[in-house]
Amino acid sequence: MDTTDTASRPVKRGRPGYDQETVLRIAVEAFNEYGYDATSMGKLADRLGISKSAIYHHVPSKEDLLRLALDEALFPLEAVITEVRTHEGSADERLEFFLRSTIRILIEKRPYVTLLLRLRGNTELERQALERRRAMDRQLAELVTSAQSDGKLRDDLEPRATARLLFGMINSVVDWYRVDGPLEASALEEQAVSLLFHGLHTVVK
Amino acid sequence: MDTTDTASRPVKRGRPGYDQETVLRIAVEAFNEYGYDATSMGKLADRLGISKSAIYHHVPSKEDLLRLALDEALFPLEAVITEVRTHEGSADERLEFFLRSTIRILIEKRPYVTLLLRLRGNTELERQALERRRAMDRQLAELVTSAQSDGKLRDDLEPRATARLLFGMINSVVDWYRVDGPLEASALEEQAVSLLFHGLHTVVK
Repeated sequence: MDTTDTASRPVKRGRPGYDQETVLRIAVEAFNEYGYDATSMGKLADRLGISKSAIYHHVPSKEDLLRLALDEALFPLEAVITEVRTHEGSADERLEFFLRSTIRILIEKRPYVTLLLRLRGNTELERQALERRRAMDRQLAELVTSAQSDGKLRDDLEPRATARLLFGMINSVVDWYRVDGPLEASALEEQAVSLLFHGLHTVVK
Repeated sequence: MDTTDTASRPVKRGRPGYDQETVLRIAVEAFNEYGYDATSMGKLADRLGISKSAIYHHVPSKEDLLRLALDEALFPLEAVITEVRTHEGSADERLEFFLRSTIRILIEKRPYVTLLLRLRGNTELERQALERRRAMDRQLAELVTSAQSDGKLRDDLEPRATARLLFGMINSVVDWYRVDGPLEASALEEQAVSLLFHGLHTVVK
């Protein structure tokens, strides 16, 4: 995503060389580096090498940048929930599909998800995004419950805590996984899913 | 920890009603709410209801507050590594001891660990703290490797990625676990450790 060739894309608003997507990408880098609250529009302008007023050609406010950035993470994550609902297969297969799809989005949309995961809920917009995250927690907890009812998952695990622990493990990927590191993304996905379903101990067959 | 009766403790420096520990606790709340960079000493003074110069009676700078706060998390976490080294038992038992001890510290020192986990590495102090976290990652990866050599842990799991995934799950506790919620801390510890060692699937005995 960092290597997107912006020159080949139509410039929507503002100055040559920047479309809204590029402004958004650079803004999110800055938010993740300094924190959203500590990143002023002036600091963003410096980073983009344009004037503060030129940023407003792209986006009306800093909060609009945040909204756009959060939707970059939330839309594909929420789409997984819709796909899971129409997914054929048992509850534990749908749970696996949910986890695998989410890991892929975390890797693909890493800077946007990082921003989402660091929200503090200080504004209405942030609280709405956190509520959308909680809806995903509930969806995952429901999947765990369904798979337990089917007898495929251990019934001694509390579904809500389990959902949070599952998300805890897979969300951590945005903090440490590097696509240019020694582990392929597909191998990471296998490791995480296998660890979650089968555990650390030597598998008894 | 939030209910600590500060009145019964000796006041070290500064104004009546505040000792350094209380200033630190309130500062960490503010850092976690607004972000460290976005929290000025002026904002802190407002929150404490004292003058900005009065804060300097307690601590020489904002960075000193950060250093003290990070050590509140790092010292007990690093002590676990020392304890693990002298712990009798097999590598997988030491791994379990490591995970259980860490979960307890995460719950007990939650605000301080939250601050640690959100560091961006923008200053030398932050980079030192991140390096201390990486040393823990390496220690955990070594434990995984040892337990694999003993035949107690699956050898198809890559130790460094596994260490990161394990920390990912247990560190998430600071984001969502509430001590006044329906799940007891000891039950959470059991759920997380059991999930990690045995996985989600119905256990084959």
